[in-house]
Amino acid sequence: MIRRLGVCYYPEQWAEALWAGDARRMADAGLSLVRIGEFAWSRIEPRPGAFDWGWLDRAVGTLAGAGLRVVMGTPTATPPRWMLARWPDMLAHDAQGRPRGFGSRRHYCFSHAGYRGEAARIAAAMAARYGRHPALAAWQTDNEYGCHDTTLSYSPAALTAFRAWLAARYGDIAALNAAWGNVFWSMDYAAFDEIDLPALTVTEANPAHALDFHRFSADQVIAFNRAQVDAIRAHSAAPILHNYMGKVLEFDHFALGGDLDAASWDSYPLGFLEDRVDGDDAHRRRYARQGDPDFQAFHHDLYRAVGRGRWWVMEQQPGPVNWAPRNPDPLPGMVRLWAWEAFAHGAEAVSFFRWRQAPFAQEQMHSGLLRPDGAPAPGLAEAAQVAREIAQAPQAGAPPGDVALVFDYESAWGWAVQPQGRDFDYFNLVFAFYRAMRRAGLSVDILPPDAGDLSAWRLVAAPGVMRWRAPLADALAAYRGVALIGPRAGAKTEAMAIPAGLPPGLPRNLLDAVVARVESLRPDMPEPLAAGGAFTLWREKVETRAEVLECCADGWPAVIAQGGLRYVAGWPDAPALDRILCDACAAAGVATRALPEGLRLRRGADAHFAFNHTTAPIGLDAVLGDLGFSGALPPAGVARAPR
Amino acid sequence: MIRRLGVCYYPEQWAEALWAGDARRMADAGLSLVRIGEFAWSRIEPRPGAFDWGWLDRAVGTLAGAGLRVVMGTPTATPPRWMLARWPDMLAHDAQGRPRGFGSRRHYCFSHAGYRGEAARIAAAMAARYGRHPALAAWQTDNEYGCHDTTLSYSPAALTAFRAWLAARYGDIAALNAAWGNVFWSMDYAAFDEIDLPALTVTEANPAHALDFHRFSADQVIAFNRAQVDAIRAHSAAPILHNYMGKVLEFDHFALGGDLDAASWDSYPLGFLEDRVDGDDAHRRRYARQGDPDFQAFHHDLYRAVGRGRWWVMEQQPGPVNWAPRNPDPLPGMVRLWAWEAFAHGAEAVSFFRWRQAPFAQEQMHSGLLRPDGAPAPGLAEAAQVAREIAQAPQAGAPPGDVALVFDYESAWGWAVQPQGRDFDYFNLVFAFYRAMRRAGLSVDILPPDAGDLSAWRLVAAPGVMRWRAPLADALAAYRGVALIGPRAGAKTEAMAIPAGLPPGLPRNLLDAVVARVESLRPDMPEPLAAGGAFTLWREKVETRAEVLECCADGWPAVIAQGGLRYVAGWPDAPALDRILCDACAAAGVATRALPEGLRLRRGADAHFAFNHTTAPIGLDAVLGDLGFSGALPPAGVARAPR
Amino acid sequence: MIRRLGVCYYPEQWAEALWAGDARRMADAGLSLVRIGEFAWSRIEPRPGAFDWGWLDRAVGTLAGAGLRVVMGTPTATPPRWMLARWPDMLAHDAQGRPRGFGSRRHYCFSHAGYRGEAARIAAAMAARYGRHPALAAWQTDNEYGCHDTTLSYSPAALTAFRAWLAARYGDIAALNAAWGNVFWSMDYAAFDEIDLPALTVTEANPAHALDFHRFSADQVIAFNRAQVDAIRAHSAAPILHNYMGKVLEFDHFALGGDLDAASWDSYPLGFLEDRVDGDDAHRRRYARQGDPDFQAFHHDLYRAVGRGRWWVMEQQPGPVNWAPRNPDPLPGMVRLWAWEAFAHGAEAVSFFRWRQAPFAQEQMHSGLLRPDGAPAPGLAEAAQVAREIAQAPQAGAPPGDVALVFDYESAWGWAVQPQGRDFDYFNLVFAFYRAMRRAGLSVDILPPDAGDLSAWRLVAAPGVMRWRAPLADALAAYRGVALIGPRAGAKTEAMAIPAGLPPGLPRNLLDAVVARVESLRPDMPEPLAAGGAFTLWREKVETRAEVLECCADGWPAVIAQGGLRYVAGWPDAPALDRILCDACAAAGVATRALPEGLRLRRGADAHFAFNHTTAPIGLDAVLGDLGFSGALPPAGVARAPR
Repeated sequence: MIRRLGVCYYPEQWAEALWAGDARRMADAGLSLVRIGEFAWSRIEPRPGAFDWGWLDRAVGTLAGAGLRVVMGTPTATPPRWMLARWPDMLAHDAQGRPRGFGSRRHYCFSHAGYRGEAARIAAAMAARYGRHPALAAWQTDNEYGCHDTTLSYSPAALTAFRAWLAARYGDIAALNAAWGNVFWSMDYAAFDEIDLPALTVTEANPAHALDFHRFSADQVIAFNRAQVDAIRAHSAAPILHNYMGKVLEFDHFALGGDLDAASWDSYPLGFLEDRVDGDDAHRRRYARQGDPDFQAFHHDLYRAVGRGRWWVMEQQPGPVNWAPRNPDPLPGMVRLWAWEAFAHGAEAVSFFRWRQAPFAQEQMHSGLLRPDGAPAPGLAEAAQVAREIAQAPQAGAPPGDVALVFDYESAWGWAVQPQGRDFDYFNLVFAFYRAMRRAGLSVDILPPDAGDLSAWRLVAAPGVMRWRAPLADALAAYRGVALIGPRAGAKTEAMAIPAGLPPGLPRNLLDAVVARVESLRPDMPEPLAAGGAFTLWREKVETRAEVLECCADGWPAVIAQGGLRYVAGWPDAPALDRILCDACAAAGVATRALPEGLRLRRGADAHFAFNHTTAPIGLDAVLGDLGFSGALPPAGVARAPR
Repeated sequence: MIRRLGVCYYPEQWAEALWAGDARRMADAGLSLVRIGEFAWSRIEPRPGAFDWGWLDRAVGTLAGAGLRVVMGTPTATPPRWMLARWPDMLAHDAQGRPRGFGSRRHYCFSHAGYRGEAARIAAAMAARYGRHPALAAWQTDNEYGCHDTTLSYSPAALTAFRAWLAARYGDIAALNAAWGNVFWSMDYAAFDEIDLPALTVTEANPAHALDFHRFSADQVIAFNRAQVDAIRAHSAAPILHNYMGKVLEFDHFALGGDLDAASWDSYPLGFLEDRVDGDDAHRRRYARQGDPDFQAFHHDLYRAVGRGRWWVMEQQPGPVNWAPRNPDPLPGMVRLWAWEAFAHGAEAVSFFRWRQAPFAQEQMHSGLLRPDGAPAPGLAEAAQVAREIAQAPQAGAPPGDVALVFDYESAWGWAVQPQGRDFDYFNLVFAFYRAMRRAGLSVDILPPDAGDLSAWRLVAAPGVMRWRAPLADALAAYRGVALIGPRAGAKTEAMAIPAGLPPGLPRNLLDAVVARVESLRPDMPEPLAAGGAFTLWREKVETRAEVLECCADGWPAVIAQGGLRYVAGWPDAPALDRILCDACAAAGVATRALPEGLRLRRGADAHFAFNHTTAPIGLDAVLGDLGFSGALPPAGVARAPR
Repeated sequence: MIRRLGVCYYPEQWAEALWAGDARRMADAGLSLVRIGEFAWSRIEPRPGAFDWGWLDRAVGTLAGAGLRVVMGTPTATPPRWMLARWPDMLAHDAQGRPRGFGSRRHYCFSHAGYRGEAARIAAAMAARYGRHPALAAWQTDNEYGCHDTTLSYSPAALTAFRAWLAARYGDIAALNAAWGNVFWSMDYAAFDEIDLPALTVTEANPAHALDFHRFSADQVIAFNRAQVDAIRAHSAAPILHNYMGKVLEFDHFALGGDLDAASWDSYPLGFLEDRVDGDDAHRRRYARQGDPDFQAFHHDLYRAVGRGRWWVMEQQPGPVNWAPRNPDPLPGMVRLWAWEAFAHGAEAVSFFRWRQAPFAQEQMHSGLLRPDGAPAPGLAEAAQVAREIAQAPQAGAPPGDVALVFDYESAWGWAVQPQGRDFDYFNLVFAFYRAMRRAGLSVDILPPDAGDLSAWRLVAAPGVMRWRAPLADALAAYRGVALIGPRAGAKTEAMAIPAGLPPGLPRNLLDAVVARVESLRPDMPEPLAAGGAFTLWREKVETRAEVLECCADGWPAVIAQGGLRYVAGWPDAPALDRILCDACAAAGVATRALPEGLRLRRGADAHFAFNHTTAPIGLDAVLGDLGFSGALPPAGVARAPR
């Protein structure tokens, strides 16, 4: 696979007279892929059953004529208004039970069978028409599943489907009552159709009820997507992707990815920093024009795993966006840096969103590679520079990482249902480990929670994994490297209960330890560790016969080890986590560094890469000279050192 | 009465094989009371009218066989799912008009006559079965009335009942219009059935309307409870209690207590500190593992009054809870301290919640005396220590306090309806006075607002009492001690209007003063007092011929006196309140101290008690040596000095 | 016109025996106007069609007998309860779709034709009865349109009317689809009745959709008011006013004012400061008892423009109010200062709200000139002092200002719909310019966005004006003075799209500049200017051949000039804005000053006025000696220097 650049384009939004010039300029800039179609349903099928393919045929032809290849999106994230007349009950409902209105996007309920059929129908129609077109590069299903908090729907359709899903899962109601512990507050049900969606209860719903609703909702996304995938495959051999959105956690991307040929995601570093990255005001201010130094990298590594090695950035921020609380301009050079960062992590393609800024509708303040008046925006030159650079360094893909990190969507749902302390957030916990790995200069692979073979890595971390599934538990037992688990690992059963022998629920020969008590802590009340740093937000009191590697200042074990297995009995702050990780790496024979603030290193397919995420130059000789780097890396700078 | 320990137990949640061992271990630990039954309706009556008493008979028998006595709870806080099929309109509605869902607890509307009948029916059935059982120690009705904000319901049943309540109260609609001042914004009604619940109005509803809705809602709780009490008394002579929840203010606990034989409350010091105690972050951090030093004591004194001298702690926190924003582990010793504090304030029993931590459902992260695996949790040893200690000091009850403090639920409703400044909170005002009394080393009695005889105390404080009821007004007139009233005392009529002669509305011969103007203040804008400290949040400009004891820095009277009556014309901060209170005590002949931070003193039935709520030792010789205390009191320490 | 004082009075709220004494005391205090009637519908028409004029006739007679003149309010802000029985669907709905309840005020939907007819009917009935009464001074329609967030209604009546409004505006649906850019997310409509109100969409609705809903909603207020105006004019020649509320932006006050004879507004300086003035805690604390030094002045100048020179303060705060988060007492002297400030800005009348404090209902804690017991409140003496003073200086009206400032309601709607950064607020932006003008000692005139002749001023500022309307654009082209525009000026078309040639969208011969990129900034991330100060919250990158007067520290133009036109490419903080404004004034030949904190200057009809808004004396000799001021101006002091 080779590195490619692309762009998102909406011919339906522009006069046809502009298309050919646009196509030519794309090609001139070195772009080779163009994603189209994914919001155009009302123009493809203006009335039910009445298709207007002409314009789209011509658009595809125009792009192909310029030597570009097309990624065709199914337009199912934006069903036209007439769909509501056909299926008045297709709307998703919010947690207050209100139907979500028409007039933006993603208003459909994943559980609505009628709409699911319509989505498969339009996908089939597009695939029949373009599935064997020579310019077709790939398919994209829908757009950003789950974005705008749309995975969970509280509609009548969802209720009906949830009851059926529960009936299928539990078989009889007594099994459900037992699994959920419904005896607790006289919550026993006599039949599946007595069960409501877990909303508007006086105090929290049963966490087992809530977790099953998350599982069900995630399954509906998978099923919805599969209907489209099946429809497309009947007509087309082109690879099928979906463009996941950053930090959308409500469905299992690994599971959805299993139905696709490659993964892709939409990367908006500045929007994310203001909107969804863990960090204080100082952090947000420091990186306001660069984005968090690790957030994109995390997703790159995640989607490399979701795509089983094959992945793209389908939408790449080219300038200010319109949707974050504040929307500053990127530091000059960052558009190039972001693209190179994706390639360093193995991306096959980076596609900018979007070609020309639309002067109308919701995203009129979202920049593109062109301004609304067609003049080049600053991102275009950076994109073209990357195009020239990858022509000299075309090899896509990624070598194995230094270490691995388990990411588990179900744990995100479980800990959202039952954080036990306001600040406990699974994503942030895993991301804290990821950040420490990156500060240590490591290249990271992300693993799904059912990973069955860990032998490729000398160190694997799995913080906060709610329950052990057989492959991972078996793999841990067989593992010869260093496994870093905890806090809150193995803390629940599949039924969202505390395991009978207490967490971490591993066999004694693997880890002879019991989490006797847990506590959530105020952010201003860290629990100091004897060796420096502290546990923050969460700590556990562990009874163990394993080796105690570190203690809290009050004497309770902080890190314990048995063979290669290490358990961390709390949420370490950054200084503590740096030490704990580096100690574990040392034990595993993995070399670490201490990179300066904002400098990041990544081993790519063909070279080592260094990225400067700060606004000041960073001298590389002292810190990365051994890899062949030298001189000062300017702000937003990218350096390559051939391997 | 003697001091006893107990525990809350849920046999329906455990295999029957565990019961006998549990009972034996309870007895071994020195516990003598076991509360059961209060969430078990779906197991007692699995289908409407089909009772399954067998398991409960055996559970009671097992406990009795171990020498334990049973507190039987009616399960009416958790009506089973089938109840909804019988009474689809029984659900409470929130202030937005949405029915509250099944799937947790307390989802019923207090006004629903059908459900009220069902509650009386199950109470009668349980009383008929166990009312004369030799192991029966007491009854508990329902569970934590009003918890989770459930007193006020906006359901159709509540609307119908509210209209009937208003018709009964006012007789004809003209009287209501006049009382409420409905002329104000053309709000006149022509009939009672034109009146809605005070919700979703464009701007605030008429405060008289809102206050009457609070009164009505409170009355519904009383009536709901009385139906159960009547049903039980027909079959049982055992004392009937209810377990009130901390800082639940929406119904009148004195009024409800009038139908019961004793009071009890559920004490969760760490949860309360994070969740509902007035204090800044520094205070919450300082006491995160100990709880507020006065919050539990306040409730002890409150429920001693509600129970007319007889009261329990029905649920005592034994370790971390699951429901506060953060849930830390108590400082070692606090479980013992909390129990002893209750006994020092006169409790007859302290019952820990709960025996064994449940590994499933909503409260699976709530600790018990046992861990989920049956091993002892840290609280068990502390409970057992208290059991040994009370065996040596068995006398329950409390001597009269040094001073008295009036607490009035109606004032809490009135000032919630019309705070006139965002930060004015009646509970916090009264609690500020209580804290000052405690810092002064005083033992406090709490009085209802209709107290008619004050002669037992040399000083009585009544801050913020919204209106004067005849007994208290008469008692103040006859009082020989020092009465400390204001701010905002007597500021309203029964109809939530300003009294004709302006506040404080007392006869001139009692207090020749008029509150000419009031103002609410920003928290960052204290109004300094000439003698130090300041008024905060609230101050009044008083015209008076009474003696001016203190002035504000701007010359307005701050504290005035006429005979023994003292009026405080603002909300004093802690330094000012310490001085104002100690001055008043000096005038009353009540000796005061200045206790160091976190040390508290209480005169119990048999001894003086000192409690160290801090994390460092406190030397007692200098501060409490006169009472016979000596040496250093360790963190979480309890010291007794025989009287 | 001469300066007059008045008061708001509610005879229906008081025993008739009090009326004559009240009238006499009003006259004795020097008041000459009394506003009545505006909440009395339930007493004027207790049952549908059954009028009770007797009491109102007698009330008017009593006032007239004391020499007072009456301002009669139509009571349409408070339809009686029986109106709901007639028109059950007349209620406004909130954005969640819930009908707003009866029991306060302003619960009607402006779009409901039935209620609009009722409002015209009661206005006609009152006008027929009192329209030619010799004591009638003026009419007031309704009360504070839009207060309590009531302009926008999401009711079925609003939906129907919105669709009709759109059909009338766009003619056919294709035109609407094109104007809104509905192609963007397949949002095309096939018919007007497919369009919903822009609420409860998954993510934001189309901004063009939202802006049209604002325009529609504003139009409904105009139409509602016009129905009353027409009804009154048929019976009365007295001037018709409306009392606008401070910082209510949801309808166009200039447009409504076009149907009226004069403007008036309700001025509550302390309530506004806590509730709606832009400022940090220090600012709110500093002016807690005085109010913002510029907020009232801004509204005075605004309503002078709305009333085309004729305007009143219809309600003036006389002491603490009841509705702000905190409600302190004004600094002694402020009631007088506020009245004089209004007169200095040209008011014909200042009417205090209210005469006697009502002891009942929602506003019982709102002070009046009398206490509830009838004794004088502190405001009365200050009002009487002003009455004596204006008798010596009777001339109302205002000379032209030094500079002009454009205020555009549509821009407020547009930027609320699409702020592009959380903190971008149109009112605050304009007010920042106004404050700078006031700090510079300037008297300001406010202009509507369709102002066509600017020749009266040497400097005109128009920050943030969303789009250019022909008269203003033409006037700018012809203007010989200095025009200060930007940021975000001309940034949208009428259809809420980016103009084809990019902002600011002016002809090149007027300003050869293009806003190539904009960014919104975190408040803690100011963009420094080379000359000092910074852009905050918002900045633009401008490509221009105009003269660059100032640069940002990073080199981008900050202020550019072409002829007399100056464009500010960001939101200047106070230091930067002071410099930018004073530089522009210097270029325009307008002299400026640098007034000390809290001192304000205003050129009135007859004199220069100086106002001390601080709590300490300010010496005037040094700063205003050239105008004839001297000595120290005490806190809350007013000084006059004859012109």
